[in-house]
Amino acid sequence: MSDWLDQIKWTDDGLVPAIAQETGTGKVMMFAWMNRDSLAETAATGYAVYWSRSRKKLWRKGEASGHQQLIKSINLDCDADVILLEIEQQGGIACHTGRKSCFYRRLEDGEWLTTEPVLKDPAEIYAGSQE
Amino acid sequence: MSDWLDQIKWTDDGLVPAIAQETGTGKVMMFAWMNRDSLAETAATGYAVYWSRSRKKLWRKGEASGHQQLIKSINLDCDADVILLEIEQQGGIACHTGRKSCFYRRLEDGEWLTTEPVLKDPAEIYAGSQE
Repeated sequence: MSDWLDQIKWTDDGLVPAIAQETGTGKVMMFAWMNRDSLAETAATGYAVYWSRSRKKLWRKGEASGHQQLIKSINLDCDADVILLEIEQQGGIACHTGRKSCFYRRLEDGEWLTTEPVLKDPAEIYAGSQE
Repeated sequence: MSDWLDQIKWTDDGLVPAIAQETGTGKVMMFAWMNRDSLAETAATGYAVYWSRSRKKLWRKGEASGHQQLIKSINLDCDADVILLEIEQQGGIACHTGRKSCFYRRLEDGEWLTTEPVLKDPAEIYAGSQE
């Protein structure tokens, strides 16, 4: 039952890029990386698990913030080297800055303008923990 | 006027991942990489230009297929290391397989099932050229 994992073209580091998109709205929430274990656990548990390249460990999204991502579908691209997750975002916040989406800056006249409000203070989101 | 390019955290290879999302529908169409030149040209011309890692050259999306991507907005994530393009897809086909989106496979019961039809035969799309 792990043939589907073997069909993915992992990078030399054993990773695959993953895009998380909110179901319903279609909003692109975040981008992260997965390794084989994280994708297997994502499929098995129904909640998004990434691979933290900086901490070199599984990153169970929401374990500190409570902002878990419930998996609605797992999709693969034509080259079998990018994953697209359709998710339901718990708490409505995916970004560690307290914004809904990580993509909150837009290029306007040669400058990156912030286009989304902070919905919750990160100090409050991560009180007593580190995600 | 290139300060906005300096604010991007490029990989050691000088690249940044880019996600192309269709305006209106919110459909995620494809994922590719950009270098500084390709992103600068994308912003300047208003059409998506990627960096082909396999061919090691600028990849002006649609130059062979006619399926150019008209830029509606260029967005940046919280870590300044991922680009999200909002695009209008010329010809309604982003994928080299002739499908609308590259993400046409969905995991169902441990198998990748094809969920989107081929809209146009690739042989016809790329007749006489190579993208």
